[in-house]
Amino acid sequence: MPAFHHPDAVLHRPAAFFKRGQMVPMPELPERADAILAMLRKRGNPLTVAPDAGSAPRAAVHTPELLTYLETVHARWTARPDFSEVVIPNVFQGPGMSGYPTDIMGQAGYHSFDLAAPIGAGTWAAVASSANVAVAAARLVGRGEARSAYALCRPPGHHAGRERVGGFCYLNNAAIAAQEVLSLLPAQGRRPRVAILDVDLHHGNGTQEIFYDRDDVFFASVHVDPAVFYPFLAGYAHERGVGRGLGTNLNLPLPVGSSEDAVLDAIAALIAAIRAYGPEVLVLSLGLDPYEGDPYQGFRVSTPGFARIGRAVAAMDLPTVLVQEGGYAVADLKQNLASFLDGFEAA
Amino acid sequence: MPAFHHPDAVLHRPAAFFKRGQMVPMPELPERADAILAMLRKRGNPLTVAPDAGSAPRAAVHTPELLTYLETVHARWTARPDFSEVVIPNVFQGPGMSGYPTDIMGQAGYHSFDLAAPIGAGTWAAVASSANVAVAAARLVGRGEARSAYALCRPPGHHAGRERVGGFCYLNNAAIAAQEVLSLLPAQGRRPRVAILDVDLHHGNGTQEIFYDRDDVFFASVHVDPAVFYPFLAGYAHERGVGRGLGTNLNLPLPVGSSEDAVLDAIAALIAAIRAYGPEVLVLSLGLDPYEGDPYQGFRVSTPGFARIGRAVAAMDLPTVLVQEGGYAVADLKQNLASFLDGFEAA
Repeated sequence: MPAFHHPDAVLHRPAAFFKRGQMVPMPELPERADAILAMLRKRGNPLTVAPDAGSAPRAAVHTPELLTYLETVHARWTARPDFSEVVIPNVFQGPGMSGYPTDIMGQAGYHSFDLAAPIGAGTWAAVASSANVAVAAARLVGRGEARSAYALCRPPGHHAGRERVGGFCYLNNAAIAAQEVLSLLPAQGRRPRVAILDVDLHHGNGTQEIFYDRDDVFFASVHVDPAVFYPFLAGYAHERGVGRGLGTNLNLPLPVGSSEDAVLDAIAALIAAIRAYGPEVLVLSLGLDPYEGDPYQGFRVSTPGFARIGRAVAAMDLPTVLVQEGGYAVADLKQNLASFLDGFEAA
Repeated sequence: MPAFHHPDAVLHRPAAFFKRGQMVPMPELPERADAILAMLRKRGNPLTVAPDAGSAPRAAVHTPELLTYLETVHARWTARPDFSEVVIPNVFQGPGMSGYPTDIMGQAGYHSFDLAAPIGAGTWAAVASSANVAVAAARLVGRGEARSAYALCRPPGHHAGRERVGGFCYLNNAAIAAQEVLSLLPAQGRRPRVAILDVDLHHGNGTQEIFYDRDDVFFASVHVDPAVFYPFLAGYAHERGVGRGLGTNLNLPLPVGSSEDAVLDAIAALIAAIRAYGPEVLVLSLGLDPYEGDPYQGFRVSTPGFARIGRAVAAMDLPTVLVQEGGYAVADLKQNLASFLDGFEAA
């Protein structure tokens, strides 16, 4: 399978974020991208550095305010006296608080829903390159030049909403890929459809938000029950979409500690729903954090279990864009992704 | 003027909160209450310790979830391994994120809109006593037993919404006072009306939110322009209420550094609007942070200027509940409040 990456992925390297009332070490490390890239090389996947796709693909999903903010915030924040070296916001948007301030502290809060998306000097370059990697894979598949393609996106994207960052995510790579594919598919009697299957351990609240009122993108996610797990405030089973999008959003939350079989069963149920929807293309938000050895300890998927997931996804027999999301057991990322790709390609 | 207070006010004493990407010292100190109490004693205002009003007055304004959360969160948070001694949230409610988790980290984020309302071991006792102080003053005025009464509320309240804390505020004392007054006033041809005049340096976004869709409470606020000042995301002039409440919310944001005369002019405009509305009772959210010596350096009101504000408010000739809000120049609080009360009582 062809794979895309970009060397700027490692320029994003904040050392810490805020959680449990204190600064804690950042597990979303540049070494994640290094490890995956080395494995892809060794495995022999054709590798391409993603070209700059310009701002249009990201602007098709995110607001101009967010894009300007992300590009400029680090310089504006650090220019203020007594501000931290890394941007971490502190004032957020409660109900009915919808004003857009000019002050950088206010903008940082407006454009965030948590404190887990710190912004350092190299963050924008990495974030923009991560989106470009997703666009490159989406274009290859959307143009029919490959049946599937892998996007080594770092930082990940599925928590990022239309204009809000959080959960180690800044731009929503999977949403950008889905939108890019939609723009490339020819209408054949009806508008083209894309499905996004999110198998990351955490709910893809950003992807859900972006497509919540749309019926041309089906979003299906298995994840730990948000009642007890990040992102806490979204990802519930009752969230089924709104307006035209009612019925095209499907969440299957599972208990903490769910077994590999339980996760596979949930994925099978999501796949059945996607089949019924009938998309032309699949975008896979491929988190490797359901792993039994992941520091977040949510699910108990083994390394061979990722091959089972790969086979199940491949059996859908759809053109597929694979977008890297989370996965924080850095030393085991390569074997888990290799297992997934082995299963996917063998099917 | 009779005044109410409670000794538990000083039990709330978190030393720091999170801002500018780092922990910073807390300016909302127990010494604020001590200083004001000493001044009231010296001045000769009749002083009463507020009795416990029970949960009904606060439950008339806030949700059961917030009240249970505030009462239990410190014990639940600190019982978790590796959690901080003081509760500071990290995951907030973005658009469409409306689930209510069982996990305490998720609940802390759900019930907050910023990181400036840390919760320590003594916070709930202080917060409950602060609301009781507001209720006691509201009852005295609402029952016609005094023309006006002062509530030494600490912590302050005007940033706290129906179910969300922030900005040093936990329960909305002014809103609780207004609601309590409404419950005591007899209907005379029409439903009773209360106006809340908020002269704190910061927008009272919580009070605004609580009454935004209601026409029986008029909310009028002068404050620094939120485009450049906390709380950043609310307090704009275009926020005029919604539904039945359309037209009963009035914000007059002023530039940073506005003069005493500019603040007095804005207050005169708010008072004119309140007169036109025709309330039976006034609740005053009395922040002393418009002071020229306040660390927040927003407005340039002098100590004699507070007497001018007192005279202007008293000239409305309404039964008035005075609720203490912010003011962080601790050494000068007593002279500024004394100046206000001198002006108010002389009118």
